[in-house]
Amino acid sequence: MKIYPSEDGMAALVRLERGSDMLGSLNEAAAKLGIDAGTVQAIGAVSELVLGYFLQDEKRYVTMPFPEHLALGSALGNVSMKDGAPFVHMHVTACRQDGSTVGGHLMEGTKAFLIEAYFRGLTGRVPVREQDEDLGLAVWQ
Amino acid sequence: MKIYPSEDGMAALVRLERGSDMLGSLNEAAAKLGIDAGTVQAIGAVSELVLGYFLQDEKRYVTMPFPEHLALGSALGNVSMKDGAPFVHMHVTACRQDGSTVGGHLMEGTKAFLIEAYFRGLTGRVPVREQDEDLGLAVWQ
Amino acid sequence: MKIYPSEDGMAALVRLERGSDMLGSLNEAAAKLGIDAGTVQAIGAVSELVLGYFLQDEKRYVTMPFPEHLALGSALGNVSMKDGAPFVHMHVTACRQDGSTVGGHLMEGTKAFLIEAYFRGLTGRVPVREQDEDLGLAVWQ
Repeated sequence: MKIYPSEDGMAALVRLERGSDMLGSLNEAAAKLGIDAGTVQAIGAVSELVLGYFLQDEKRYVTMPFPEHLALGSALGNVSMKDGAPFVHMHVTACRQDGSTVGGHLMEGTKAFLIEAYFRGLTGRVPVREQDEDLGLAVWQ
Repeated sequence: MKIYPSEDGMAALVRLERGSDMLGSLNEAAAKLGIDAGTVQAIGAVSELVLGYFLQDEKRYVTMPFPEHLALGSALGNVSMKDGAPFVHMHVTACRQDGSTVGGHLMEGTKAFLIEAYFRGLTGRVPVREQDEDLGLAVWQ
Repeated sequence: MKIYPSEDGMAALVRLERGSDMLGSLNEAAAKLGIDAGTVQAIGAVSELVLGYFLQDEKRYVTMPFPEHLALGSALGNVSMKDGAPFVHMHVTACRQDGSTVGGHLMEGTKAFLIEAYFRGLTGRVPVREQDEDLGLAVWQ
């Protein structure tokens, strides 16, 4: 990946490698940048997309593979700590050639074509994800 | 809500309470953080969504209720002053279990399931919303 | 356009003029703000939208005009240098009165109704776009 950090080290523009796993690469970028807490967003395109949808009543994710070339209409997320490492939580909307869209929770298995991301870190108390029984998700406690 | 402010007090990560009104809680967070002008964005999920669509010719909003569990593909907005208080203007796209999406202007009545938001304030001259006769909307003057 | 810069000159809220070309006006705003590298995002509405979709195999964009009034569900992008000038790369999702959405790469020809944008510049090494033969796109080298 190509990283363009800001002078104060608190933000960066990042281009992911073609063919890399989008979520894995974003997690790697956050670790390289030393960002434990912050915001992350991206645009670009993928050659394959895997979305998740959380069933609020059943408290589990279902997975939707989209083995298609798609533009990212938006990719929005945050960085916080989970299991001792920086963890990217990201949702995306993706677009087909006719403009139609699909969206959801970004899962592993999504392949970058061209991804241009922006990170900005926050100083201060770091949010840590821990399992919440009521929600069925690991959330900031 | 849980607030994780940055050390300089100019930014924060915020988790909204399950069941709270999403727009109302974001307005409350902006006020608590003392942000009069800035950017705000969020991801997460809602148990019920209310969108607005502005009819440009008729100069009025129509309201669309979506009484469904939906993931937020994106929630993007800003904070500025309106009627003497910080005011969040936010647009969202939301996603169903099959990946299909709906989107528009976030209205009151949207119920948070899990909302993770990011705020960043701006110092400098604060934009103030005032009614614009040409547009039919309260915009920065 | 109306520009509300931050005191440090590194960020701004910007309202575009009704009827202006959205992409052209964002490029103009980046130049006026002196932002060579950074992030940009917007919400609002357009009276006409032109999207592009990049054919990854054929290495070319196809254009989709949407001559409709649409809300912007999201508009997300970045600023970097191309051909010696600040260049905005932006993707959007847009929403109809029934909540249905379309999305893709923002092209010239998109007419602003009300656009509220946020820019934040990055100091440090500036990413420069140059043509990449493998991708068929001008990307950060």
